[in-house]
Amino acid sequence: MNKFIDISMLITPSMMVYKNKEEKKPMFSVANTLNKNGSYETTLTMNLHTGTHLDFPLHMIEKGSNSTNFNLHLINRQVKVLDLTSVKEVITQQDLVNKNIEQGDFLLLKTTNSQSELFDFNFVYLSESAAAYLVKKGIAGVGIDALGIERLQPDHQTHHLLMHASILIIEGLRLKDTLEKTYTMIALPLSIPGMDALPLRAVLIHE
Amino acid sequence: MNKFIDISMLITPSMMVYKNKEEKKPMFSVANTLNKNGSYETTLTMNLHTGTHLDFPLHMIEKGSNSTNFNLHLINRQVKVLDLTSVKEVITQQDLVNKNIEQGDFLLLKTTNSQSELFDFNFVYLSESAAAYLVKKGIAGVGIDALGIERLQPDHQTHHLLMHASILIIEGLRLKDTLEKTYTMIALPLSIPGMDALPLRAVLIHE
Repeated sequence: MNKFIDISMLITPSMMVYKNKEEKKPMFSVANTLNKNGSYETTLTMNLHTGTHLDFPLHMIEKGSNSTNFNLHLINRQVKVLDLTSVKEVITQQDLVNKNIEQGDFLLLKTTNSQSELFDFNFVYLSESAAAYLVKKGIAGVGIDALGIERLQPDHQTHHLLMHASILIIEGLRLKDTLEKTYTMIALPLSIPGMDALPLRAVLIHE
Repeated sequence: MNKFIDISMLITPSMMVYKNKEEKKPMFSVANTLNKNGSYETTLTMNLHTGTHLDFPLHMIEKGSNSTNFNLHLINRQVKVLDLTSVKEVITQQDLVNKNIEQGDFLLLKTTNSQSELFDFNFVYLSESAAAYLVKKGIAGVGIDALGIERLQPDHQTHHLLMHASILIIEGLRLKDTLEKTYTMIALPLSIPGMDALPLRAVLIHE
């Protein structure tokens, strides 16, 4: 009877992080204990790009815009899951042209990345050509089930194309329980101003 | 045209924290910079009881239950805001008896705490008698606009009464923009298993 499909990553010390970098793994430390302090409390240390998160232009662009005053309505809305699980390595324009993408869409790209909880150095990503196509289509946002929306692009062309077109980016989604269809997404990030990224909890409503 | 009322605290280095303790303030450090690493990234270090958060029994009870498998439906539901802004210092059973509280309710206690962004050592809290009354009423959850649901109770009686009755507790709400009425709450915590608390973003739908 669960009407929510959780599309967020679990945050744990052993979770998948980008390129398996130790410094990207969340760390948990005991701040207080019942015996010593009368209550038990944990402190979390985490890179804001770990797990499911929103990327802001400041991540890639000098003095780019950041998380201040982020409008929650931009991510609490209809979204279209695109099934791209037949794609190997990279999503190109050709993979998207028959997907009935319309102006203003928020797309969630479901790939084979959702099938594993281990970091794959060859994860499926969005090519520059595909990003340019999405910019031309005038979409509002795009989410992907990888910890990066691109890789192997020294100048981060995919990020730059999307960010300069004010297209929102969500990374680190888990989409294995979704179908290719339209859902209502509920997604709330932590409320931190001035950031390059915000940790995000996101669910889809299963109707 | 904003249909959400944000009832979460902003997370910043200078935000209000419990008893103004330095170790409760969130810390932000630069993990990567555009010049050195090609992208800008921030790392956050934060006590999980800082800002708006869900408390779990593990916080106060040896081997108490924790955040693992937390059911999001428990906090995505109708909630009743109670206007208790006339209460001085402590909410007692007397303040609640005429509030039409029903079994299964999720109550949000709006007090004068919502009127300031500075920590008040005399913040309004929920007395043991009021907690016992809520347990008797059979409520499902209670949120308050203070960083603690109690203070000055050496054995944490309010926490214990609520937790032993499996009543959910949300602390650190900001309720100044709400009225005494029923709202639909949308609330998503970070997805971290095994915790004594979870940082929470919560909004009410303004109909």
